[in-house]
Amino acid sequence: MACFQILHTDRSCDARRGVLTTPHGNVQTPAFMPVGTAGAVKGIMPADLENIGAEMILANTYHLLLRPGVDCIEKLGGLHKFMAWDKPILTDSGGYQLFSLGARSDNSSGNHIDTAGLCSIDDEGVRFKSHIDGQEGYLDAEIATAMQNKLGAEVIMAFDQCPPFPCPRGDLEKAVERTINWARRSRRAHKNPQQLQFGIIQGGIDVELRRQCSAELVELDFDGYAMGGLSVGEGHHNMVRTLVRTCRFLPEAGPRYLMGVGMPEDIIAAVKQGVDMFDCVLPTRNGRNAYAFTRDGPVRMRNSIHADSSEPVEADCDCYCCRNFTRAAVRHFFNVGEMIGPILLSLHNLRFYQRLMAEIRKAIDDDVFPDWADTRLKEYNWGCEPEKSSN
Amino acid sequence: MACFQILHTDRSCDARRGVLTTPHGNVQTPAFMPVGTAGAVKGIMPADLENIGAEMILANTYHLLLRPGVDCIEKLGGLHKFMAWDKPILTDSGGYQLFSLGARSDNSSGNHIDTAGLCSIDDEGVRFKSHIDGQEGYLDAEIATAMQNKLGAEVIMAFDQCPPFPCPRGDLEKAVERTINWARRSRRAHKNPQQLQFGIIQGGIDVELRRQCSAELVELDFDGYAMGGLSVGEGHHNMVRTLVRTCRFLPEAGPRYLMGVGMPEDIIAAVKQGVDMFDCVLPTRNGRNAYAFTRDGPVRMRNSIHADSSEPVEADCDCYCCRNFTRAAVRHFFNVGEMIGPILLSLHNLRFYQRLMAEIRKAIDDDVFPDWADTRLKEYNWGCEPEKSSN
Repeated sequence: MACFQILHTDRSCDARRGVLTTPHGNVQTPAFMPVGTAGAVKGIMPADLENIGAEMILANTYHLLLRPGVDCIEKLGGLHKFMAWDKPILTDSGGYQLFSLGARSDNSSGNHIDTAGLCSIDDEGVRFKSHIDGQEGYLDAEIATAMQNKLGAEVIMAFDQCPPFPCPRGDLEKAVERTINWARRSRRAHKNPQQLQFGIIQGGIDVELRRQCSAELVELDFDGYAMGGLSVGEGHHNMVRTLVRTCRFLPEAGPRYLMGVGMPEDIIAAVKQGVDMFDCVLPTRNGRNAYAFTRDGPVRMRNSIHADSSEPVEADCDCYCCRNFTRAAVRHFFNVGEMIGPILLSLHNLRFYQRLMAEIRKAIDDDVFPDWADTRLKEYNWGCEPEKSSN
Repeated sequence: MACFQILHTDRSCDARRGVLTTPHGNVQTPAFMPVGTAGAVKGIMPADLENIGAEMILANTYHLLLRPGVDCIEKLGGLHKFMAWDKPILTDSGGYQLFSLGARSDNSSGNHIDTAGLCSIDDEGVRFKSHIDGQEGYLDAEIATAMQNKLGAEVIMAFDQCPPFPCPRGDLEKAVERTINWARRSRRAHKNPQQLQFGIIQGGIDVELRRQCSAELVELDFDGYAMGGLSVGEGHHNMVRTLVRTCRFLPEAGPRYLMGVGMPEDIIAAVKQGVDMFDCVLPTRNGRNAYAFTRDGPVRMRNSIHADSSEPVEADCDCYCCRNFTRAAVRHFFNVGEMIGPILLSLHNLRFYQRLMAEIRKAIDDDVFPDWADTRLKEYNWGCEPEKSSN
């Protein structure tokens, strides 16, 4: 059985060091989970993921449900075996994916299905059309939980309704009401005591709704609590303001997970409030688009200023890309469409995030987190050229 | 200085075991070189290439000349450093690429320039328009050699004219005449004694022209000899018939290299005649297209029969893909457009070729090559569904 333990809290803020203990290994927190949407972190082999220090990854129930199907994965021995990843996994419940895919398209397969309006939702659950082929499907708290029980991740998520931003007050209230109701049903439906189950707090940037949602979910005694529906367009300030308050409504002892976040400055701000876990597609998505995260801020690797550069993507980075390739070579690979451009930069960015989390953990251990954060945020050029940070 | 040594010749055929000794490491022959066209073997990190046993790779002068430019690579410390590959490299001269690109398009960058008729050739050299952007360029024996001297590979190739198949007799004779003339000029132009220089024999499937070309090039005392212009549509039988004879015209002691070949059955047939080196894009190109080489023959990984398969791509294969992933997972990755599908299968196919070469070398060491070859060719299902095997 997995469990969470707080090892130390910074003496001058709420940032805390913890460890999630699972039968598939321990996860030092604050932790960043690379996203393996459809059973793979895009372009990265699991062995390389392990080498760069990732201790836990996320996989998306909705995507796996459509292809290859949860029964197929179960039959093949579960998600760990399917993904060739023997360390901890967290599966989302499909809620976010369903609602976000209502307004987005999936480019991974080259198909483009206009999914706007393909979701129909009532208090029971969500009827949807696949963003791949338009085929009808249905998901509710019981099904989403059963699917995740079958997939066998260490941490599974309650089924929720993720409202967009901005959202009319009435719709937001309704989403919170459903999220609470579905959390209750998810909790009852959870049948695998080997898995931790986290509830998801919704409520947009409305602190009172976040409070209500938190109070109701805490009653259900989840193993941990996630904040959903942030980093969906509300901006850094609104996000931080909301999570500052929401963290106060959550039990001190349980793990706190900020879903789909985000840029390094978002992560640092959230850690300061006591958030323990993060996931985001930014390192890989931006990596595929030639955007490198570095200590000095973002670097656009297609820029012609790198054409003759014998420097690594990031000075002092210990990743395979930076140890072996010049900026000139990485730029060249993007320029000529060689696959290893996106691969190398995804790997670098993932390593950047793991190094960031290691620095964060050390700063907390050393009781200097706020000072460290101030210094680093000034030193870094983060926040310029932000890309979409939700998944 | 690099050099070639024959260690053993099979007692009942011309197959021979050798070793190419270079300042960047030794290459056991018969050897297969993965192709790193534009400075990278597509989708594969150099460390993984080394892990699967590749001892030497090929890079294309023509592609590197266009992007990022040979001077850029030289300035950055040479091709080994640029590619992050510290083992031996062979660069082609650009001849094949120039002529083949006249009838082909480059898909790597998503661009499509119709290059038909973009080459104009005379006895001096070749004026061409870039297949990328149509910009004019010029290549001749002196330039191709100087470029390769700068790139710094262990083995460089003479500039040649590669005729298509079929080719009118007059054109074929002209191509051989130019190839001989350009070989002479390439030999004179070669200024880096650290690099071996190989001549390229042309002549289509005309044995008399091959003989003439061989005789003239052998006079020039190259460090090795390549057979070009094969596997260009003439078929397995014509190819074998031609190389059987051509090998007899070449010095016993020097390395023999069959360019752009090929399918496993082609390699086995050529080894039997005393060929030592091969290169081909098939393992990676087919891998990207979900075509797996296995001991039992080709396997199409998109086929729905693999949807629930818990088997590895190839039983007993020791590659990362086969040790970690089921056929079901690999098929799923192709199905959903996950990059690691092509990556894993390219890696598997490259490992398949390296294992094949290791088996070939052992069969020669054991003096059983012809029997081994007969058995394996019967056992294998090779030759069904052949794909284009030239690069």
